[in-house]
Amino acid sequence: MKNKKWVYLFSELDQAMAYVNDDWSALRGLFGGKGANLADMHRIGVPVPPGFTVTTEACNAYLAGGGVFPDDMWDQELHALMAIEEMTGKTFGDGDNPLLVSCRSGAKFSMPGMMDTVLNIGLNDETAKGLIAHTQDPRFVYDAYRRLIQMFGAVVMGIPDEAFETAIEQAKRKAGVATDAELNAQDWEALTQQFKTIFRSRTQVDFPQDPVEQLKMATEAVFKSWNGKRAVDYRNAAGIAHDLGTAVNIVTMVFGNMGDDSATGVAMTRNGATGEPKIEGDYLINAQGEDVVAGIRMTKDIDALATDMPAAYQELQTIATKLEQHYRDMQDIEFTIEKGKLWMLQTRDGKRTAHAAVRIAVDMEEEGLITKAEAVARVAPDQIDFFLHHQFDTKAIAEAHNAGQLLARGLNVSPGAAFGVVAFDADLAESWAKEQGKPVIMVRPETKPDDVHGMLAAKGILTSRGGRTSHAALVARQFGKPAVVGVSALTIDLNKRRMSVGDRVVLEGDWLSLDGNTGEVFTGQLKTMVPDIRDPWLIKLLGWADEIRTLGVWANADYPADAQRAREYGAQGIGLCRSEHMFFESERLPFIQQMIMATLPIERREALKALLPFQREDFAGLFREMDGLPVIIRLIDPPLHEFLPDLVELINELADLKMRVQHAGNLAEVDHLLQQIRTKERIRAQAERLREQNPMLGLRGVRLGIQIPELTIMQVRAIFEAACEVTREEITVLPKVMIPLTSHANELKVQRAVLEAEAKKVMAEQGITIDYKFGTMIELPRAALTADRIAEYAQFFSFGTNDLTQTTFGISRDDAESGFLMGYINHDILPDNPFATLDRDGVGELMRIAVAKGRRTRADLECGICGEHGGDPASIALCHELGLDYVSCSPFRVPIARLAAAHAALKAGAKGK
Amino acid sequence: MKNKKWVYLFSELDQAMAYVNDDWSALRGLFGGKGANLADMHRIGVPVPPGFTVTTEACNAYLAGGGVFPDDMWDQELHALMAIEEMTGKTFGDGDNPLLVSCRSGAKFSMPGMMDTVLNIGLNDETAKGLIAHTQDPRFVYDAYRRLIQMFGAVVMGIPDEAFETAIEQAKRKAGVATDAELNAQDWEALTQQFKTIFRSRTQVDFPQDPVEQLKMATEAVFKSWNGKRAVDYRNAAGIAHDLGTAVNIVTMVFGNMGDDSATGVAMTRNGATGEPKIEGDYLINAQGEDVVAGIRMTKDIDALATDMPAAYQELQTIATKLEQHYRDMQDIEFTIEKGKLWMLQTRDGKRTAHAAVRIAVDMEEEGLITKAEAVARVAPDQIDFFLHHQFDTKAIAEAHNAGQLLARGLNVSPGAAFGVVAFDADLAESWAKEQGKPVIMVRPETKPDDVHGMLAAKGILTSRGGRTSHAALVARQFGKPAVVGVSALTIDLNKRRMSVGDRVVLEGDWLSLDGNTGEVFTGQLKTMVPDIRDPWLIKLLGWADEIRTLGVWANADYPADAQRAREYGAQGIGLCRSEHMFFESERLPFIQQMIMATLPIERREALKALLPFQREDFAGLFREMDGLPVIIRLIDPPLHEFLPDLVELINELADLKMRVQHAGNLAEVDHLLQQIRTKERIRAQAERLREQNPMLGLRGVRLGIQIPELTIMQVRAIFEAACEVTREEITVLPKVMIPLTSHANELKVQRAVLEAEAKKVMAEQGITIDYKFGTMIELPRAALTADRIAEYAQFFSFGTNDLTQTTFGISRDDAESGFLMGYINHDILPDNPFATLDRDGVGELMRIAVAKGRRTRADLECGICGEHGGDPASIALCHELGLDYVSCSPFRVPIARLAAAHAALKAGAKGK
Repeated sequence: MKNKKWVYLFSELDQAMAYVNDDWSALRGLFGGKGANLADMHRIGVPVPPGFTVTTEACNAYLAGGGVFPDDMWDQELHALMAIEEMTGKTFGDGDNPLLVSCRSGAKFSMPGMMDTVLNIGLNDETAKGLIAHTQDPRFVYDAYRRLIQMFGAVVMGIPDEAFETAIEQAKRKAGVATDAELNAQDWEALTQQFKTIFRSRTQVDFPQDPVEQLKMATEAVFKSWNGKRAVDYRNAAGIAHDLGTAVNIVTMVFGNMGDDSATGVAMTRNGATGEPKIEGDYLINAQGEDVVAGIRMTKDIDALATDMPAAYQELQTIATKLEQHYRDMQDIEFTIEKGKLWMLQTRDGKRTAHAAVRIAVDMEEEGLITKAEAVARVAPDQIDFFLHHQFDTKAIAEAHNAGQLLARGLNVSPGAAFGVVAFDADLAESWAKEQGKPVIMVRPETKPDDVHGMLAAKGILTSRGGRTSHAALVARQFGKPAVVGVSALTIDLNKRRMSVGDRVVLEGDWLSLDGNTGEVFTGQLKTMVPDIRDPWLIKLLGWADEIRTLGVWANADYPADAQRAREYGAQGIGLCRSEHMFFESERLPFIQQMIMATLPIERREALKALLPFQREDFAGLFREMDGLPVIIRLIDPPLHEFLPDLVELINELADLKMRVQHAGNLAEVDHLLQQIRTKERIRAQAERLREQNPMLGLRGVRLGIQIPELTIMQVRAIFEAACEVTREEITVLPKVMIPLTSHANELKVQRAVLEAEAKKVMAEQGITIDYKFGTMIELPRAALTADRIAEYAQFFSFGTNDLTQTTFGISRDDAESGFLMGYINHDILPDNPFATLDRDGVGELMRIAVAKGRRTRADLECGICGEHGGDPASIALCHELGLDYVSCSPFRVPIARLAAAHAALKAGAKGK
Repeated sequence: MKNKKWVYLFSELDQAMAYVNDDWSALRGLFGGKGANLADMHRIGVPVPPGFTVTTEACNAYLAGGGVFPDDMWDQELHALMAIEEMTGKTFGDGDNPLLVSCRSGAKFSMPGMMDTVLNIGLNDETAKGLIAHTQDPRFVYDAYRRLIQMFGAVVMGIPDEAFETAIEQAKRKAGVATDAELNAQDWEALTQQFKTIFRSRTQVDFPQDPVEQLKMATEAVFKSWNGKRAVDYRNAAGIAHDLGTAVNIVTMVFGNMGDDSATGVAMTRNGATGEPKIEGDYLINAQGEDVVAGIRMTKDIDALATDMPAAYQELQTIATKLEQHYRDMQDIEFTIEKGKLWMLQTRDGKRTAHAAVRIAVDMEEEGLITKAEAVARVAPDQIDFFLHHQFDTKAIAEAHNAGQLLARGLNVSPGAAFGVVAFDADLAESWAKEQGKPVIMVRPETKPDDVHGMLAAKGILTSRGGRTSHAALVARQFGKPAVVGVSALTIDLNKRRMSVGDRVVLEGDWLSLDGNTGEVFTGQLKTMVPDIRDPWLIKLLGWADEIRTLGVWANADYPADAQRAREYGAQGIGLCRSEHMFFESERLPFIQQMIMATLPIERREALKALLPFQREDFAGLFREMDGLPVIIRLIDPPLHEFLPDLVELINELADLKMRVQHAGNLAEVDHLLQQIRTKERIRAQAERLREQNPMLGLRGVRLGIQIPELTIMQVRAIFEAACEVTREEITVLPKVMIPLTSHANELKVQRAVLEAEAKKVMAEQGITIDYKFGTMIELPRAALTADRIAEYAQFFSFGTNDLTQTTFGISRDDAESGFLMGYINHDILPDNPFATLDRDGVGELMRIAVAKGRRTRADLECGICGEHGGDPASIALCHELGLDYVSCSPFRVPIARLAAAHAALKAGAKGK
């Protein structure tokens, strides 16, 4: 190991880069992130206080050797120290003009729980005196000295920080002051003495007066901290390798508190909230870095530095530009001005809001700093959500938390934020919203199709039951309503019109705020910010994403208004129109119920006839909106009982009615009640007949179409009559008819025959030929496994990954998400919620089989996905890998999907520019 | 086509065999089944009346040529006729000693709806006279002549048979007699004349007097009948190719009604009911074949022929033996003795009962006629069922049908037949059975776990709802109780203690008979036959099956008594002990309910503690029975709400109780009722909390074990305490612990850790080491798809194909079998019920994937199946193909599975002997 280089001055970066074969990632491994960055800044000519890095290799050798520095390391460290002395003109341990240094750990990945920082190494009783002579500022020096003892004591020797802080508190009480800043030089000098006593009493040794000893012990402490319990635990949790080791950075101390020609500050090279390309930050004259962050003194806007210290400001601007050019991203920087001299202490990529992220990415592309592909890659798909939905003000959330307004947490199923008054049923929600113009939060144990009018009128939806794909969640997402569901801590008493969490009660009419991004529910009204999708930078960025992506992005839309929004957001087609959703509208529900209750074929036919014009007009509206783009209409899917009231509710209502008959005041009332009982009994009997143990696995989808072919025929007629009507308006209609819940190719064969016969009939009646396609959902394992046979009848596949996930896992989405599934995720039995992010190994494997087998039969088979996963970035990446043609998601997620699809293409190296 | 041979004398079989390259199947194609057989009998020296066959090729050429005999065919037919004349010494159309022949169609496959038979061709006014002179029997001759006209008229000319039958009826009325037999020679002569008149009036032509013309027209009629509507329809339905054509067989007529030295009869070469190796049959002296079948005259037992016609009898015995030797199977033969000369008219493999099939197969092996493999292959696995269950007498069933006793049909879910009095609840069923010794049929809309005591006491079970794997079906099969379920035509009124089908009503206490083999339900008491598994021939046959099969046969058994039966029936292990089935027993149910209702951990622990000794003793009992054989115990599987009463029932009961409070007569009664209401309300609240939309996809199996680890721990403790206890008794215990409903490897990982810790603890406490294995059910698609990862934790797989079928198809077994699924099967959308026979393409594909992936991880991974399919022969064949190690089925199906497994091995050519 002789002659191995363990220590590199910042100025020796080139040598280190040669050692790691010019691999910047390897250099970060060798130097740690912090050291690599400091050396890098030095290399590009940014003023960085002189310093050096002891490599991670040295750390690993030290640990492997059982706590002995590797051969020659310490000599190299001392030599590096001498080089610094030369650069600064100061001398380590010198009584006149002492060199002070900081010692910090620095691993490849940022790691809380590891030994961090010791400042002011080099101070001792003698150098302190020299520094006072040099600075004429005893308060500054003793403050610095006691800090060294305190930090060294805490991080090198393991003395609890409280021991020192208690002494400071006592000193303040004694001096009759409130803050550290009010303590004077004498106070700090006394405290320095007291700290030395504490140090000795806790460690049985004196605080080391030898600066070289200080440095050596600090270096060793950093090395050892790599194997500290908290660091090991953190690495285990974060999945970081244990053999990386940490580097040690030794840097010359600079001080912003050396008079009015000194200052310290932090800045962003662009505005982190808006993205505006203008430096943004705060600073303080004659202060230390931590004073800026602590907020004890009122900081000044960075603009003021132009007047206070024009030269330093100018240099900071130049450095900011240089750093952006070098790192090709907005930077978050820390600086100190010591007696007029600007030093950069840190630079890193700056945090930013979603809006700023988009603007910065687009601006930088236009400035020629980054490519379009890079700009696209810079913005996380989920950030687009912030352009689409109301959000709570960050400050308002923090305040609400502090004020104890957080009521409960649930599943964050539909993003955005909303506040309003609580209404416990759909009718009330609608009337308060429409008649009184009140913002309303509709609260229910769970929602049902006949709640939809209330959900539409409400600003937000809250349920105590249900999961990520419950009715409430699906409808909320569909209409872009913020929603929190599955709040199991919530007890709703519909009779008493109140709800409670523990002993906290919320009455109907009380204000409530809910955050669909986080699943948090607050009492009271929280301030929201208004979204805007027409952000010019966003539009540009999504345009680039469209150039990059190969995956189509379609939308799930049931109504013309949805389709319009989908198109506005960039959807290239409708991937799923749930034809039965139209049945739930209040004017149509009676007809579908009539169809279900029908005992004679003629009754059923009449009811279906009444539904036909509604369906036709709905489809015509969709076709008009989607002129020239494909529209996939899925035939009826849910089991019939969904259109009837809940059986248990009916039984309860009946029991109640019967009780009321007992107490009726007059015969007319009895008559009236008996009439109601008869009607409800009839519905109840039918609901009981239709009752299934496991409706999700029951009579629905294609099974219903086969059992009641008239239903298929009515829907097909509506589709083709609408298509003909709209074609006459010179609009291009591209309808695709989709059969749900296929498990066997024969089901398709049978339904396709019924469908084609009716389509032909309508087209002949209308004298118009419609170019249509026939396809199926792939949402059952058997359909995926036998996709080769199914493709004989289907011209396209659409993966219904909600159902496919349910049956592949054997997990009911309705029950599990508010039940055991969350426990599975919390206990790492499952890595993700498979209803939110596609399960790659199980569901993904079935999709892979289906695509491969399907295309073996029909090479041009179009494959898409229309489950909730179609809007999830990780799932979109899998869809890209699987070679799907498109993803279809709710209109509100279309922009996100466009960006995610571009990311997927970039990741796969498909079409990167 | 010149010189092609269209016509073969029976004696020319060798020539025909050469033409078809000695392929017997091709010969059957050329000659038809009937012709091939007659020629074949001739070849081996059995006396067959001289005759010849016109080939199917001739038929096809005739049809292809638009109804013209192919070149030379008719000449060949006439030459063959001349050959017959030579052999018989009779001449066709000769006034003195005329040759008469029959003309019959004969296709490769037996085909109803095709032109069949014309007898007595060759008779005309002149030959009739000659024959009278020759036989001195004018009655015989005119009877024969009128038959020719009638048959020729009907099958060649298409005259409805009624036309002729009406004339006979009139003649009988005129003669004042009741039967044809009483008509004399004059009557038949007059009828012959009348028939000729009818013939002419219907066809506008005279009945052809030229025998050659008769033969030619009959031949053509047979050819044409191949394309008759009924024949084409039949072939379409049966999937028989349309280009096979039919042959025409022309055979010399022989007559058993030529005096007391003539006779006719039918016989089986062995007893078709018992299999006894002794000829069995009936005959009539001086009679025609149809007289024997028609049953007008009292037939004689074949034994009597030994006295009546000793020579003929002796010859018949010799021929029977010869035919058995030749065809290597028991034969069903027809014979005629004409003036002392024995002629064989037909031979074919004889139909036999299950018992006879087994005995004949075994006897023939021992006689050296067939190999053991052939003997095994001769018996269909399902025939074994007849040895295991009561069966209705065949005659009794026919009589019940005739008497209109058939009430309804349902699913034949558990074989066997039973009669008893109807009881509409479990308690009544039990008390009637136990206290009054009545045979009981328990009737319920569907059964639940707390009905089990009634089901055990009943002789048979009938439900109006439920499918092939409903609770009723599973339990019935488990205990070998005949059961019919899903009788949707049945309306049960539990309040009025009656049930009805349409307007037919059955009251509680009425007699009912049900046939679990056919799914038929009869009113009244039908006679049953007693089964016997200890049939010595069956034991021998199953022993040979065991030598042949490679697939193990295990049994599903929850109780020691089941295990004992399983072992007696030849099971090699317990493939599935459903550990929770023991919870349903009336003494244990309170504890499991207590566990579910527990609100405090201590309550739950106490309840589990109370269950422990029960579980331990149950397991110990199983282990004792299965000394030396493996026992797989599956940890608790069903969702907890299954142990509570049904929610809808509870709500109804509560409504009823509240109503009763209103009408209570005194305060004590009110108090009592309120008490009941409180208790039920508490259960209802918990049932409501546990209520799931789709329990099949809910909190059950491993999910429950993860949620309530104490439950797993209790069960594991019970298993290992029992294993230690039994080991001390010097019994060899091989327990295997199985986790149900795994979808992700991590579930196993977590449960295995809990299990191993507890197992270790118990073994340490007891000081005994148990050699156990840990495995999982593969019953969800995801488990199959990720079997490689699951096999990292599981030492064995057991396919739970009931659940796997449910999730692969997305079909709930509970709902579908009494719902749309039967429609799917009836309409050929599905080839079979996938819950009865494994779905090869979907579920089978998942199994294939799972076995392959699982064994990739763990080469010695043991794979079995424990779903209902484990006892289904077709599914067993698939399991063999998939390379499973064993199938596990209900004890009653073990013998069937042993035979089916042997069949599978023979089919795969694995180990055939």
